[in-house]
Amino acid sequence: MKVSIAHLGPTGTNSETAAIAYANWLGRHRQQEAVLFPCPSIAITLDSVAQQKVDLAVVPVENSIEGSVTTTLDRLWQLEQLKIIQALILPISHALLSCNASLKEIQTVYSHPQALAQCQNWLAKFLPSAKLVAINSTTSALPYLKDDLAAAAISSPRAAQLYQIPILCHDIGDYSDNCTRFWIVSSTQNNNGSHLSLAFSLPKNVPGALVKPLQIFARRGINMSKIESRPTKRLLGEYIFFIDLEGNLQHSSVTAALTELSQYTETLKIFGNYDFCQLTNN
Amino acid sequence: MKVSIAHLGPTGTNSETAAIAYANWLGRHRQQEAVLFPCPSIAITLDSVAQQKVDLAVVPVENSIEGSVTTTLDRLWQLEQLKIIQALILPISHALLSCNASLKEIQTVYSHPQALAQCQNWLAKFLPSAKLVAINSTTSALPYLKDDLAAAAISSPRAAQLYQIPILCHDIGDYSDNCTRFWIVSSTQNNNGSHLSLAFSLPKNVPGALVKPLQIFARRGINMSKIESRPTKRLLGEYIFFIDLEGNLQHSSVTAALTELSQYTETLKIFGNYDFCQLTNN
Repeated sequence: MKVSIAHLGPTGTNSETAAIAYANWLGRHRQQEAVLFPCPSIAITLDSVAQQKVDLAVVPVENSIEGSVTTTLDRLWQLEQLKIIQALILPISHALLSCNASLKEIQTVYSHPQALAQCQNWLAKFLPSAKLVAINSTTSALPYLKDDLAAAAISSPRAAQLYQIPILCHDIGDYSDNCTRFWIVSSTQNNNGSHLSLAFSLPKNVPGALVKPLQIFARRGINMSKIESRPTKRLLGEYIFFIDLEGNLQHSSVTAALTELSQYTETLKIFGNYDFCQLTNN
Repeated sequence: MKVSIAHLGPTGTNSETAAIAYANWLGRHRQQEAVLFPCPSIAITLDSVAQQKVDLAVVPVENSIEGSVTTTLDRLWQLEQLKIIQALILPISHALLSCNASLKEIQTVYSHPQALAQCQNWLAKFLPSAKLVAINSTTSALPYLKDDLAAAAISSPRAAQLYQIPILCHDIGDYSDNCTRFWIVSSTQNNNGSHLSLAFSLPKNVPGALVKPLQIFARRGINMSKIESRPTKRLLGEYIFFIDLEGNLQHSSVTAALTELSQYTETLKIFGNYDFCQLTNN
């Protein structure tokens, strides 16, 4: 039976590229065939797994330029049963797509807010008076570009091919080494891997309240690769902390750390133990 | 001479409301008159102070629902000379504005991405098929609503009055107690106040690298009210940490902590020592 994989659509998004890369990985390493399910938002992509409409979801979690994809973190915290089973890193390339051959005539640029943010210096320099319109994905505007010669979209070179829209400018991102980390999410727990992601809220805001949980890991030599705070949405100044660790749930030092951690937290959610898939170029 | 204050415009934005509240505070407490300068983006608002085009800027830093305003943090880190001199908290109310009296006929909803995000559950329930368009501010679309009866905008009740657009639905935010924290930024250092904000990068990613800086404050009983990580934009997994503390630069324990902190950080920037303005209702 084919594995069904939800991702942010429509076709041509970076999330779809990540889902295809993961489907190829499944074919090579697990001899599994996959079928993709594009979704209209990241929240609905994750909901599809929680509601068992699909087996897996591939969702962006962090970009090297713009930081955390907060919708992913917030939804993962809200949904009870989702687990991260793998991760992958995808290089990102931004191009300006338009049916107009002259940059001077572009009045509006459409893209996902993260893509607009990652090209803001280029846009300020080369299209200072263009209207920037943030939309649901990097490809949502592409079907309309043929009818609007004053419009352009920031999208991937792959989307340019798929939608048959010419690339007006290549590599318009403000920083090199642009890449996005994706999580592969399932409703089945995975207890083996080199990376561990979790989140917790703290009972109250006292001096050192956050230091104690962090010390638990530092004392055992467990490396914390990321910490991110998100609002609880109840009160300004109350946070949920999202933490990525290097550790395996099969090791007693890790399980001991998590047991100790639960004494200091109000709510603690372990999102899963996972490895990064190594992607090849084909 | 009047104090010039930059803020995210155009007229009717929550940033303008915050700037007016601060201007009123200046009048009451310092007998100073102020003049407002609306800017097209948060980055340009901060740049105006750095380039000495204005005396002050009022910028949003954190919302209780959507979290940090990352543009503000990133720009403050990039600009060398800006200092936070005061802070204020503004309650936020979202209304749906339209010249159409029927919710059923609304096909497009315009607003700032933070406002769209703060009303996403309401929108999914009452306008599930509407196109959501993220724009520069909560008020940018208001001048066009009179010509487009299928369009609505999420904006404040105050903006509805200013632009003479009827309110179709009141209080459409997904959470109560919605408020936004603003910083008042100047190019002049302030070394006195109850709150202290700073940011630092760390030399490399080793176990406990972040714990040491945090322990410095915990050991001295200095409360950390917020920690936020932002990407360095160089490499995935490299971060700048933004920290808010309760402390006064006049106290030796605070200056000693900062001296110790500088031994562990790669770059350390102290954004300022400040108090919160108490706003009245008029």
